[in-house]
Amino acid sequence: MIKIAIVGFGTVGQGFAELLERKREEIERTIGKFRVVAIADSKSSISGDFSIGDAIKMKRERRRLRDDGRAEEIIEELDFDVLVEATYTKLDGGDGLDYIRKALKKGSHVITSNKGPLVADFRGLMSLAERNGVKLMYEATVGGAMPVIKLARRYLAFCEIEGVRGILNGTCNYILSRMEEERLPYEQILNEAQELGIAEADPTYDVEGIDAAAKLVIIANTIGVDAKFEDVERIGIEKITPEAFSVAREKGYTIRLIAEVSKRALRVSPRLVPLSHPLAIKGTMNAAMFKTDTAGNIFVAGRGAGKEETASAMLSDLYDIYAGN
Amino acid sequence: MIKIAIVGFGTVGQGFAELLERKREEIERTIGKFRVVAIADSKSSISGDFSIGDAIKMKRERRRLRDDGRAEEIIEELDFDVLVEATYTKLDGGDGLDYIRKALKKGSHVITSNKGPLVADFRGLMSLAERNGVKLMYEATVGGAMPVIKLARRYLAFCEIEGVRGILNGTCNYILSRMEEERLPYEQILNEAQELGIAEADPTYDVEGIDAAAKLVIIANTIGVDAKFEDVERIGIEKITPEAFSVAREKGYTIRLIAEVSKRALRVSPRLVPLSHPLAIKGTMNAAMFKTDTAGNIFVAGRGAGKEETASAMLSDLYDIYAGN
Repeated sequence: MIKIAIVGFGTVGQGFAELLERKREEIERTIGKFRVVAIADSKSSISGDFSIGDAIKMKRERRRLRDDGRAEEIIEELDFDVLVEATYTKLDGGDGLDYIRKALKKGSHVITSNKGPLVADFRGLMSLAERNGVKLMYEATVGGAMPVIKLARRYLAFCEIEGVRGILNGTCNYILSRMEEERLPYEQILNEAQELGIAEADPTYDVEGIDAAAKLVIIANTIGVDAKFEDVERIGIEKITPEAFSVAREKGYTIRLIAEVSKRALRVSPRLVPLSHPLAIKGTMNAAMFKTDTAGNIFVAGRGAGKEETASAMLSDLYDIYAGN
Repeated sequence: MIKIAIVGFGTVGQGFAELLERKREEIERTIGKFRVVAIADSKSSISGDFSIGDAIKMKRERRRLRDDGRAEEIIEELDFDVLVEATYTKLDGGDGLDYIRKALKKGSHVITSNKGPLVADFRGLMSLAERNGVKLMYEATVGGAMPVIKLARRYLAFCEIEGVRGILNGTCNYILSRMEEERLPYEQILNEAQELGIAEADPTYDVEGIDAAAKLVIIANTIGVDAKFEDVERIGIEKITPEAFSVAREKGYTIRLIAEVSKRALRVSPRLVPLSHPLAIKGTMNAAMFKTDTAGNIFVAGRGAGKEETASAMLSDLYDIYAGN
């Protein structure tokens, strides 16, 4: 019986729990029986005798769970095999960093959707996992269900990855694609995106390239580049004008916010992309182009966000931990 | 010590052997020491005391190896852990089918770049591998280094794959991209492609969609659709005119040879693709779009052929067999 504990029970945590239940038969056929033994958020928790359905209903109706202990107590004291860490991203690591460290030290595997802890201490967490003989999985931190991390770590394991260029923020890509099509000012498209729920009320985190830079740091470290958030050269999309798209178009280009890591570069900035290039992708998609020594250029794209997509990436981590071979 | 035997020592077999040698240090650090214990082609073989370098030199200078036994004798009698099967594709399975069956029955893993055996008997080979507790790996049969098979089998393991649409033949895609750009007749572009070595002297296998259909059968079976080669509805690219591209373009489309599998379709045919769609990709690239229930649409692209790319896909199979978890 695989025992799973979940910390963070917002959209991502609930999405993961729902998917576990919906796919239970298939999951158990592949990796064996599992049980969610505890769920905690910042204000409440549930452990002992409960079902996933109970917990989700409780959270939605009463906006909280029971009071079965604080998250850190549950992590320290309860017996479980995998911690699913789905708390909100804080770039200094936040509580998530503490939760992940505690779980790894106990000898539990960790699956996280939270960029913060990895941005704050990638190397430290990886060596902690290794020393304790457990896995730290983080596919969901970059590009939703787009398979970036497993591509780099597993599929291209014997390749030298010379560089990665990617579109790592769906909100920015939506705004830029719309500006390309409509030739309307940035502010107007941003407002539209906010109305559609594609951009946040405070869009800073997305439009200044902070989110993309955090993901770039995770990709960089994954391919062996020891990068910190402060090392990323970063320019956002706020100053791009409709005229810039017109000029670019005349030459056969469009403009995209490109995150790039290579031996020479570590930056997030608006770049000209040929209209026929795969990175000229439109809408809220995320994409990444890996330049390798022996596998040529490998390109992947997918929806960069979404409750089910993120949960699906976390399930693929669970698969890899238990059915990897 | 992992003992590897190679049958088929043309471009692919030699490319794999070269890459093994070139990446030896990294491979051995990850999966442990290995040795190539035998290499056989249709006319000659080498086993016992030899180096990879010796064998490649011998084959290039004398166009043959030694006479250390026929391929089937080596497979039946020699002690090895992995058979690398890189003989030439014959859609009825050919000798490759026999080699793979013999190796699986002995309890050896198999890595193949040969579509024929899988097209001829996918289910039979997979259950033979399972019964003998070994792996049959075939990433290199579809799309060169583009990670299609591992994406379907591992990464999307807990997803329902509702359908796959792909560009699975680089020669056709090169011809169609050039027709799109130059508006020249099919025959003229085909001649050009033949001069560049992108199309064969007899282009039938590519331009009639036979190669793409074989790969589609492998993808279909991988996602659980029990398809045979004869089941594929197949139309080639020979009748496409430059005018068709002009008409398509006016409506914002181009034309690509699309291989598609879903509950309703199993076909290879020229299709209209929106110019901004990822499958409008140009040149000798291969690409595939997976439609899934919970991970959304996942798109991958890469060079569909090439000695190093194919060898690189086979190395990723070796990684998965021995370092999978």
